[in-house]
Amino acid sequence: MSSKTSAQVIIGGRVYTLSGYEEEAYLQKVASYLNGKLEEFKGMPDYTKLSGDMKSVLLELNIADDYFKAKAQVERLERELQQKEDESSDLKNELVSRQIEQERNTKAYEELEAENRRLLLEKTKLEAALEQNAATENKEEKE
Amino acid sequence: MSSKTSAQVIIGGRVYTLSGYEEEAYLQKVASYLNGKLEEFKGMPDYTKLSGDMKSVLLELNIADDYFKAKAQVERLERELQQKEDESSDLKNELVSRQIEQERNTKAYEELEAENRRLLLEKTKLEAALEQNAATENKEEKE
Repeated sequence: MSSKTSAQVIIGGRVYTLSGYEEEAYLQKVASYLNGKLEEFKGMPDYTKLSGDMKSVLLELNIADDYFKAKAQVERLERELQQKEDESSDLKNELVSRQIEQERNTKAYEELEAENRRLLLEKTKLEAALEQNAATENKEEKE
Repeated sequence: MSSKTSAQVIIGGRVYTLSGYEEEAYLQKVASYLNGKLEEFKGMPDYTKLSGDMKSVLLELNIADDYFKAKAQVERLERELQQKEDESSDLKNELVSRQIEQERNTKAYEELEAENRRLLLEKTKLEAALEQNAATENKEEKE
């Protein structure tokens, strides 16, 4: 658990002492982001003419806009991630099917190989029998 | 291209006329989000004792915190998406390899089948030759 910290940050040229559970580095990053927005606003025409209240609302709307855009990006990425997860899952299922098919094919190949060896053996036996017959016939003819 | 619109929104009980390129529905959503935060703050002890400036800064920091959290989530999701894309890509490559292997196996099986047919034919011929020999022998013995 993080402990409560206190940090001084400068926002819009004013010093604020913030206390909370966030780390100082994070608070400085947030302050720096807000100062960046205020700097941008200074370059806008008529900004200096706005009331302090209107300036604050303008800043708040601007940060909220960043937040909503990031949130929309989160939603888009979550959808994309879901699609990719579905795709991966489909590909894994496809690979398993291929694996099963491959095992079945290997078995069929091995059976065919065994059948081949059996045929080769039978062929050799038949050839030997024929040779034997021919030899006997030759012998009989000579006698 | 969207045209410039003007919308009235209520933030913290005050009416603001906003003009910009965002749709009114979006501006109302953002205003509603800000009002939700202000409502939450009212429930906090000592909030009413804060200066207007400090109240604004508190709100700005709070929205910025939402933004940074959403941004961190975007970065996390982008990393996860990249990992999933890499995984999908690996699985696709694996499937292509399996496809090539399967085609090679099918070719080997077909060759073995052709060899089998050839052996079966030779075996049949040899059997026929042996039967012929046996018939000739029987005939010779009878004569």
